[in-house]
Amino acid sequence: MMNTDEFFRNRKTIRRFSDRAVSGELLNEILESAIKAPSCGNMQLYSVIVTREPERKKELAALHFNQPAATGADLILTVCADFNRFTRWCEINKGDAAYNNFLSFSSAMTDGIILAQQITTIAEMKGLGVCWLGTVSYDPEKISNLLKLPELTCPVAALAIGYPAEEGETTERLAVADILYDEEYPVFSDDEIRHIYAVKDNFGPNKKFVEENGKENLAQVFADIRYPRHLNVPFSDILLNYIRKQKFL
Amino acid sequence: MMNTDEFFRNRKTIRRFSDRAVSGELLNEILESAIKAPSCGNMQLYSVIVTREPERKKELAALHFNQPAATGADLILTVCADFNRFTRWCEINKGDAAYNNFLSFSSAMTDGIILAQQITTIAEMKGLGVCWLGTVSYDPEKISNLLKLPELTCPVAALAIGYPAEEGETTERLAVADILYDEEYPVFSDDEIRHIYAVKDNFGPNKKFVEENGKENLAQVFADIRYPRHLNVPFSDILLNYIRKQKFL
Repeated sequence: MMNTDEFFRNRKTIRRFSDRAVSGELLNEILESAIKAPSCGNMQLYSVIVTREPERKKELAALHFNQPAATGADLILTVCADFNRFTRWCEINKGDAAYNNFLSFSSAMTDGIILAQQITTIAEMKGLGVCWLGTVSYDPEKISNLLKLPELTCPVAALAIGYPAEEGETTERLAVADILYDEEYPVFSDDEIRHIYAVKDNFGPNKKFVEENGKENLAQVFADIRYPRHLNVPFSDILLNYIRKQKFL
Repeated sequence: MMNTDEFFRNRKTIRRFSDRAVSGELLNEILESAIKAPSCGNMQLYSVIVTREPERKKELAALHFNQPAATGADLILTVCADFNRFTRWCEINKGDAAYNNFLSFSSAMTDGIILAQQITTIAEMKGLGVCWLGTVSYDPEKISNLLKLPELTCPVAALAIGYPAEEGETTERLAVADILYDEEYPVFSDDEIRHIYAVKDNFGPNKKFVEENGKENLAQVFADIRYPRHLNVPFSDILLNYIRKQKFL
């Protein structure tokens, strides 16, 4: 039995894992619960590929730039938006399946992310550590080739999962009042924007970040180093081309 | 204290709500917990607009085709992918923000959906009922105008929330083994596809659906009536045009 308020407020991303294996039984149990999460028309427009086999895990981790969470996890779950399986079912049954479009991509991506987040919550409640690998969208075609994903699918989340070998770091968050708006999106002054992000500017580890990177402030670290134009623009093209190739555009 | 396994396996979507109001305190409490969910680089690329005011709620419900969950809910949360606020912060701080691209849309949509699902889980654990309104993607521009969403934002989830006035319906799910794949996406035969979806074909309420709609099978109900070509194609164009207008493409 669990104090869930405490759980949610204290949850932390885990990036270092012990050698202990996550059993197939436990993974199954997590999925049995997670698939009860909402899904568009209950179509369940997702698939999950488990990568455990050491050689393949090495290859997949490389596509996630060998970040320690990827190389050290016991397994990686790649959650895919999937209109392939559903389309097959419709076609076999002589339904006029028309899911090769962007709206359908959006629906399937939503289903995939919902499932991935529900897996995350349930896994963490069972004592596992989870790290979302945002790199899943950087070269989806190579991930797709490795996992043999067919058209009308797209990897949308990659979860590195294992037993924690660290406590995880406390991270700062914006105030709820600064992201939850009544009735309309507010018109913010520059000062109000500065005030909203002060909690990030003033967070100790972020200050260190700024120093280490020789930047004037945290916003520059994000815009110029962590998520910069020279990566966003080409990766965006790669992602769009892949979605096109998968027949979602 | 809560048996979380039981909670997750029994969760149900609620579409009918009582008149009891969801207090601002409770909503705040839910958000305080939910914002600890994972987010891309902890950038928190989301905003949440609360619609409570009766006249506005009526207008918003109309954009969700006046489905009972929308008209009857105490409030609707529209969760938006939001790179606007973050971009403002970067620009004010002289960072070279380059988030007017599809990769950034994908990151912010992911953040928004993760948050929306975490809100759903926490709200349900606190005894509220939640219904995701998939219609959020059908005419995002009108929703956007009503909520005064600026560029580099996009509504990605709409949650109708209130105290339940029904138990909610039990719905069927595919077997975990049929969506969780080891190492590679399988190559399915037609018979295997049929077998996977038999659980949906044989589910009582679905059989009624097929009868009522005068179709041969459930797949045809989905493909020809519920999510048909003549809606998918134009709605897809509307969504793409909106994302373009919001500068994400």
